[in-house]
Amino acid sequence: MRPFAAFSCDAIGCAETGLITMRYVFGVDLGGTSIKLGLFGSNKSLLERWEIPTRTEEAGREILADIASALQEKIADRGINSKDVMGVGLGVPGAVADDGLVLPCVNLNGWGGFDAAAALGERCGWTVRALNDANAAALGEMAFGGGEGKQNIIFITLGTGLGGGIIANGRLVVGAHGAGGEIGHIKVTGDDEEEQPCGCGRRGCLEQYASATGIVRQANKLLKADPCIATKLRDVAEPTCVDIFNCAKEGDVVANALIEDMVRSLGKALAGIACVCDPEVIVVGGGVSRVGDILIKGIERSFARYAFPAAKRTPIVLARLGNDAGIYGAAQLMWQVSRM
Amino acid sequence: MRPFAAFSCDAIGCAETGLITMRYVFGVDLGGTSIKLGLFGSNKSLLERWEIPTRTEEAGREILADIASALQEKIADRGINSKDVMGVGLGVPGAVADDGLVLPCVNLNGWGGFDAAAALGERCGWTVRALNDANAAALGEMAFGGGEGKQNIIFITLGTGLGGGIIANGRLVVGAHGAGGEIGHIKVTGDDEEEQPCGCGRRGCLEQYASATGIVRQANKLLKADPCIATKLRDVAEPTCVDIFNCAKEGDVVANALIEDMVRSLGKALAGIACVCDPEVIVVGGGVSRVGDILIKGIERSFARYAFPAAKRTPIVLARLGNDAGIYGAAQLMWQVSRM
Repeated sequence: MRPFAAFSCDAIGCAETGLITMRYVFGVDLGGTSIKLGLFGSNKSLLERWEIPTRTEEAGREILADIASALQEKIADRGINSKDVMGVGLGVPGAVADDGLVLPCVNLNGWGGFDAAAALGERCGWTVRALNDANAAALGEMAFGGGEGKQNIIFITLGTGLGGGIIANGRLVVGAHGAGGEIGHIKVTGDDEEEQPCGCGRRGCLEQYASATGIVRQANKLLKADPCIATKLRDVAEPTCVDIFNCAKEGDVVANALIEDMVRSLGKALAGIACVCDPEVIVVGGGVSRVGDILIKGIERSFARYAFPAAKRTPIVLARLGNDAGIYGAAQLMWQVSRM
Repeated sequence: MRPFAAFSCDAIGCAETGLITMRYVFGVDLGGTSIKLGLFGSNKSLLERWEIPTRTEEAGREILADIASALQEKIADRGINSKDVMGVGLGVPGAVADDGLVLPCVNLNGWGGFDAAAALGERCGWTVRALNDANAAALGEMAFGGGEGKQNIIFITLGTGLGGGIIANGRLVVGAHGAGGEIGHIKVTGDDEEEQPCGCGRRGCLEQYASATGIVRQANKLLKADPCIATKLRDVAEPTCVDIFNCAKEGDVVANALIEDMVRSLGKALAGIACVCDPEVIVVGGGVSRVGDILIKGIERSFARYAFPAAKRTPIVLARLGNDAGIYGAAQLMWQVSRM
């Protein structure tokens, strides 16, 4: 499919008119509490970034209308001609199947179950492509962030959950069921080692140990199991992931042991993933990544221990785009599509 | 790069002459004991298949000369014009880095350490592309075998070792160090569970449990550890992988337990790999796959147990090309390259 074959002008000059024509792309990142929107110009520069609230009530029935209005208002405000908009990339917090079907999204009250790109496209009149939000962030980091200039990337995002995006040969690995990059759900324990179920219904997923929620869960388990254990974490009413890292930086032995367990799980899993796709770089993002070097150094140590010899020195770096990775990546998908 | 831009004729007709022009591709599969060669015609049909011995002496110094002679003799015998050969795909039993460097191959007495495609190209005058042999088999199975018509595949080959090839978006995932698809070296045990080292120098790799050598090793360990255990395997001097499957088919409890362990390791690892690349199909090849359904059914059971819910029903099928997968895949690489 070449949806943009009609645009004979390239990004900067236009052979037909001789005029410089700006070509716009919108990148949209649909989250559980807010929708981030970005307007990008011809040279892939972010011209403007703004947010609107996500109305999740009634299974999010107003979400697409809200997005369409926000985009239409933006071009009206800026006096942009609708035909100069190349399209919209839409990151959604759930799996997007190959045929465009967005599976129901847990943190949008089950919004989904339809082709969201087609539905938004009908509302706003532009070509729209949807992709999973972690995949969007991966694409953003490849094009503009920690994986800039690379064609083969593992992107891992550590937050409430543990998500990922795999890029191989410069393209996202979305897979047959939109489950490409669902690395938080690799089972990392023996058969009966974990009692609590993961969000996916199974037990022993990487996410249960190596996400922000995971390390907090492990901390609470430890503190409860051994009431005599001495740690500064006891001074905090409900320790968060950041508390654990802060205590560790202050030399707390228990906090350090918890982090060691977390990075061991992560490094071992990433070493396994690297046996599959052998990336040029591993990019670590998400809220937890704000703790910085202590996390990266820990993952590096563990990865080197478990990795296939040829891949031992794969660089592990922090993501650079923060919360904007999703809008950059969604926009990048449109630029990629327009070149196909 | 468009190495075949000079060929203006397509596979069947030639606009310039009006004549039907045959376009040939060679697929070569360099193994430790023999070199398999295939001559393919315009319509990707295998016209002829033959073998020559692999001369591994002196670090295989004659290998490329032997291949070049074999190919040149073949076109002379058949009266093929050299310029009608599109090129040669060359599968090698080792990693091929992105820049064409073939890493030294263990079962070719260390042959490698240079750009084998460039070296063979200089000898025979055609464009040559090298790829890892398991990757070649994956590509062959995608184009002509168990994964026909699919764009996203996990190929796993169970033989003396355990190799693999990943295809995502229709293209091989070779990776940064040529280690894409090295799934036999995913660590599947806890830190101190395995005493014996794997061929790669580490301990606890999937290959140590789920290859032909792996299951035999596990059988020997079990028989030695418990001299009282009753099993038909004791009637065989040195049980092979085939013996174990045969005994299992006859109802031997111990043999069945060994196979259950093997397919549990395989299914769990494949479920993890599917969280990375979410294939349309998993294709199982290699010598062990000749045991057929007992293996596939076992892997299916275990995979469904460990897989991410969306991917639970991923089909698992037997490879169809047997020993010819490598030559088909090597040839397929040339056809792919010629379309780029």
